[in-house]
Amino acid sequence: MRKTTKRLRVSHAVVEAVQPTVEGGWFPAKATVGEPLTISADVFSHGHESVRAHLRWRPQAARSWKRARMRAEGNDRFCSVIVPAAPGMVEFEVIGEVDRLGDWQRDARRRAAGGAFDGQDVITGAALLAEAAEALSLADFADDAALVQELADVISGVTDVAGLLGLLDQCDAASTVFERVPPGGSDTVSERYLLSVSRQLAGFASWYECFPRSTSPVPGRHGTLRDLVGRLDYVAALGFDVLYLPPIHPIGITARKGRGGKTPATPDDVGSPWAIGNASGGHTDIAPELGTLADFDALVAAAADRGIEIALDLALQCSPDHPWVSQHPDWFVHRADGSIACAENPPKRYEDVYPIDFDTADSDALYSAVLQIVTHWIAHGVRVFRVDNPHTKPFALWEWLIAEVKQIDPGVVFLAEAFTRPKVMHRLAKLGFDESYTYFTWRESKSELTDYFEELAHGPGSTYFRPNIWPSTPDICASTLQHGGRAAFVARLVLAGCLSASYGIYGPAYELLESEPAMPGTDGDFAHSEKFEVRTWDIDNPSSIADVVARVNRARREHRALQSDRTLRFHRVDNDRLICWSKCDARTGDTVLCVVNLEPRWPESGFVELDTTALDIGENEVYDVHDLLDDATYRWRGTRNFVMLDPSRSPAHVFALHRPNHESFNLEDPRLDALSPEVLGTRP
Amino acid sequence: MRKTTKRLRVSHAVVEAVQPTVEGGWFPAKATVGEPLTISADVFSHGHESVRAHLRWRPQAARSWKRARMRAEGNDRFCSVIVPAAPGMVEFEVIGEVDRLGDWQRDARRRAAGGAFDGQDVITGAALLAEAAEALSLADFADDAALVQELADVISGVTDVAGLLGLLDQCDAASTVFERVPPGGSDTVSERYLLSVSRQLAGFASWYECFPRSTSPVPGRHGTLRDLVGRLDYVAALGFDVLYLPPIHPIGITARKGRGGKTPATPDDVGSPWAIGNASGGHTDIAPELGTLADFDALVAAAADRGIEIALDLALQCSPDHPWVSQHPDWFVHRADGSIACAENPPKRYEDVYPIDFDTADSDALYSAVLQIVTHWIAHGVRVFRVDNPHTKPFALWEWLIAEVKQIDPGVVFLAEAFTRPKVMHRLAKLGFDESYTYFTWRESKSELTDYFEELAHGPGSTYFRPNIWPSTPDICASTLQHGGRAAFVARLVLAGCLSASYGIYGPAYELLESEPAMPGTDGDFAHSEKFEVRTWDIDNPSSIADVVARVNRARREHRALQSDRTLRFHRVDNDRLICWSKCDARTGDTVLCVVNLEPRWPESGFVELDTTALDIGENEVYDVHDLLDDATYRWRGTRNFVMLDPSRSPAHVFALHRPNHESFNLEDPRLDALSPEVLGTRP
Repeated sequence: MRKTTKRLRVSHAVVEAVQPTVEGGWFPAKATVGEPLTISADVFSHGHESVRAHLRWRPQAARSWKRARMRAEGNDRFCSVIVPAAPGMVEFEVIGEVDRLGDWQRDARRRAAGGAFDGQDVITGAALLAEAAEALSLADFADDAALVQELADVISGVTDVAGLLGLLDQCDAASTVFERVPPGGSDTVSERYLLSVSRQLAGFASWYECFPRSTSPVPGRHGTLRDLVGRLDYVAALGFDVLYLPPIHPIGITARKGRGGKTPATPDDVGSPWAIGNASGGHTDIAPELGTLADFDALVAAAADRGIEIALDLALQCSPDHPWVSQHPDWFVHRADGSIACAENPPKRYEDVYPIDFDTADSDALYSAVLQIVTHWIAHGVRVFRVDNPHTKPFALWEWLIAEVKQIDPGVVFLAEAFTRPKVMHRLAKLGFDESYTYFTWRESKSELTDYFEELAHGPGSTYFRPNIWPSTPDICASTLQHGGRAAFVARLVLAGCLSASYGIYGPAYELLESEPAMPGTDGDFAHSEKFEVRTWDIDNPSSIADVVARVNRARREHRALQSDRTLRFHRVDNDRLICWSKCDARTGDTVLCVVNLEPRWPESGFVELDTTALDIGENEVYDVHDLLDDATYRWRGTRNFVMLDPSRSPAHVFALHRPNHESFNLEDPRLDALSPEVLGTRP
Repeated sequence: MRKTTKRLRVSHAVVEAVQPTVEGGWFPAKATVGEPLTISADVFSHGHESVRAHLRWRPQAARSWKRARMRAEGNDRFCSVIVPAAPGMVEFEVIGEVDRLGDWQRDARRRAAGGAFDGQDVITGAALLAEAAEALSLADFADDAALVQELADVISGVTDVAGLLGLLDQCDAASTVFERVPPGGSDTVSERYLLSVSRQLAGFASWYECFPRSTSPVPGRHGTLRDLVGRLDYVAALGFDVLYLPPIHPIGITARKGRGGKTPATPDDVGSPWAIGNASGGHTDIAPELGTLADFDALVAAAADRGIEIALDLALQCSPDHPWVSQHPDWFVHRADGSIACAENPPKRYEDVYPIDFDTADSDALYSAVLQIVTHWIAHGVRVFRVDNPHTKPFALWEWLIAEVKQIDPGVVFLAEAFTRPKVMHRLAKLGFDESYTYFTWRESKSELTDYFEELAHGPGSTYFRPNIWPSTPDICASTLQHGGRAAFVARLVLAGCLSASYGIYGPAYELLESEPAMPGTDGDFAHSEKFEVRTWDIDNPSSIADVVARVNRARREHRALQSDRTLRFHRVDNDRLICWSKCDARTGDTVLCVVNLEPRWPESGFVELDTTALDIGENEVYDVHDLLDDATYRWRGTRNFVMLDPSRSPAHVFALHRPNHESFNLEDPRLDALSPEVLGTRP
């Protein structure tokens, strides 16, 4: 609430509606290293006064600001584009001020053009020019200052209309110098806003999830981290950036679940990796059956050699055998009989998992222990954490934890596995998660997909909520995949990987078309779920779509258009089973156009009508579209072209546009073309 | 910017996205005495925790809060409706808390229904019930507290499932008692937000503007305030609530403008009332040719007798003869030769007006003088001010002045004559103007009108920007009126008066169909403008549409539907010249449906398709629509009905709906039906 209005000698300029901001500046907006970000605001004054608007920014708590003039966009809106160079918090302010020098130039010229000479114009002009010269001098623009001071000296001697007009012409010629005059003392400064800058991996990455214990080349044998090292070349060949592992910690014995989640387990059942902790240790230890910490270090190193980062699962819950249960019983909820309460969703009970009581009186120690888990793995080279069910723990835990970790290393990335209500998912994004799982798995029709991705890319949440798109997970055997066969797997892969700059697949189940649900008619667990048993995957099976996965990931790496969501635009197709969209990279002009047949059973065809506000295609322009999935090339003409997709061959086109007579595109956001030279550091 | 996150033992509940708020709470949202206002927020917690949401509010700086439970609307949104009873600032907060008692009831029942008895449920339940009993007791709900304490006592003795289920049934039966439990210590309180409550006249009023000097019954004679008293019965018969007078102060002699704004003036030219001040006085004086302050007091009293308020024009500028010019030369801008600068928009100069320099070093005295002008007229019974060109003075002046005046009398109403850029108009509304002129005069086509009134009624600005709609003003001889004749005048009258709860006409020019522009092809001044000469109006002229004006104003007074803009909804008509909309009053069910033919030259017909989300009309429902303009009644059936409007008879229908079998309507906002009993005072 604003303080009581007090009449002060205040600046005339108003600064309003600064974007991107989240909840009026309560939370930081998100930015990504290397990705242009437009900062904008309404800046205006009353009457005929025109204004200058400046953006200034700096890494949080740095001593000096960088500054750029913001460009007028019309309707009193000003904007500037910055390209963050390093992860961390950046603070920024928008500064508005009345352009007294500019208004004087405008009005003096009009008066003089009317033939009237007013000595006041000389007095005012001389004062304003001298003031500008001094400001330039203080800002270390010595040459500019000298030039403007010279104008000030000249105008003092002007005595007639001709002299004044001549001087005003000289001022016009010096307009680029005037541009550099910094804001003066009568300016209005906005609230100070924050940007949370994540490293590029948070905004653009292809993820691959796999269970290490299912990577043994010997059927039936329990896989190890060393086996997983052997699988790395395969993962690298598929083109993934992040290899995400379900929990690799010791697994509880007490109330362990058997195959299919059934109890009791038999002695040879391996248990769920999410029932964390036994006599061998807890969240900072490696399950002995997977190997040692040295093996893990070797895995991280081998992955890094192939350009792959290892992501760990942060699942804050304990098996009854976790060391914390005996060492810190007060970190758990107790029942009337003194026993620790297991997880439950009444009347269901999950005896193999004890939820942690984050409201414990000993929460200082507990929070420290959680932070220590994360810093332990950071010390072993992990900078990406997929957080299990963050929405079942207090928001305050995550806000504190993520801030603490980012103080240590702002490049650490947190992905929220928050399959929950919209407001809760968004709160987690606001309070610090770099990325979030989404509802994609349940968005199937063209209208559902269009509405959802419009919201993700351009809705109000897009300033802080980064989607990471998964067609399936070990918990979700998606219904489209159960019934659609290979075509559905390819279609959903292309949707995930080309609609969103961040996506992942749960493999090798995905590329091997695993689609049998544990309970027919449901989209929950898979049959023979890896969550409860070791699987052996025949990655060389000829039905594998690994080749398509590799093609999609190569397209993503080679085409900057696919590495951001900001330019996503859907295009009309006169067939509800065909969905079409494009993405563009403003700086290179790179453009990718995708068409997917959502009907896996039979061919669909239709006319694509390209939206010319998104793609500047001439009515009779002839150009080639090259399919990055099968290398076919088609010659297109104008905005309306025929497409036919037979799912028995391929349900999708991922077209790179080749337009020989068109060097650069007129993108939907032409501001991106005019990057300020005063950007935040250099481009990657 | 939020402070660095600190780990505190914080409430789990989150309160977000509180509405209505303006710029994150920087400015107050607007509310109107007697008009239901919905306050809403997102309130949620993590995991399976459910929440209770409370609204609390009080007049600013009052000691104690009023409080109401907010109702869940789905998707974690909660809302409450308040009806402000008095003008002034109201502060409010939204409080969220985890509903531990409710969650215990839910979970204990599920566990018990599964057949398991857990002693912890008894312990927890007893503690939560005792806590609730204490909270009720502290809130002076003694009976409720006793009842809940009894439940707490009973549960302590429960030892089996049957006993627990019985107790839970008792708790369910006491749900209305539990509803009254006030929020406890583990709650989350939102920011404190402000509502600026204006009196009803700011939200619903019919305005009539007229020049007192043109009210003499004797042709050619200069009219006086006493003549205006003689005109009051006419204005009252037309049904107006506010009579707004252009400036009534002494008019400058120096550089006075003659007829048509031409210079030099002849000795008998009366000058522009906006060139304020001469030897007879300034802004607190009455022009001698109009009468005396006693005459003015008599006018205010006579108007009040007829239910009419006098609104004055606050035009902060001076003629060269204004007493301030000699008394306070430093309140004006000076030129190089020492003379005071006249108003200009280079190269144009307005020699009869000196603009005030609000940035003068003597601004304390100047601001006080401005405030004194307003309090002077308040002392003479004026509580409505139409502010001339507020956008040409500093925003800070208005923010200060309006706050000061509202401290003295929160019922004073300020209307901004801000025909300027959208952001500037909105800023003036945010900083305190109760109402604003709009772009209506230039919105002519069906799509222009629909888009603009959708924005005014339902856009983000509707929380603080109240439109006041004028088909013409002394400065704007609207082009639709120049070419459309009587039909256009009636159509624009019905649009203004029935689309908006506040509107006004510039009379008698309007009802007498005055439509000749000073410069053909422009929509600026009228020919023979009253701004520069005395006019004699033949108000008994048979071509006058005074009868239609009276009909429209009677409809507005008799139909609550027309007294608010919140329920405005447009309906489809298959003819682009016909525009149709409805308004409803949720509490009485009163519904008005309007259809206007925008083509003044010939009849237009089409089928109206009523939007059933706005009006719950059955497919075959039969009902009568009664035209409040000509008393004709038509029998309609269902949602699709034929309309034909012949502008040579009447270009508009203003239908009251009569639906014998339909007591109340299913309105677009069903929340209005369920007014909390704990509203802000009583309804008017």
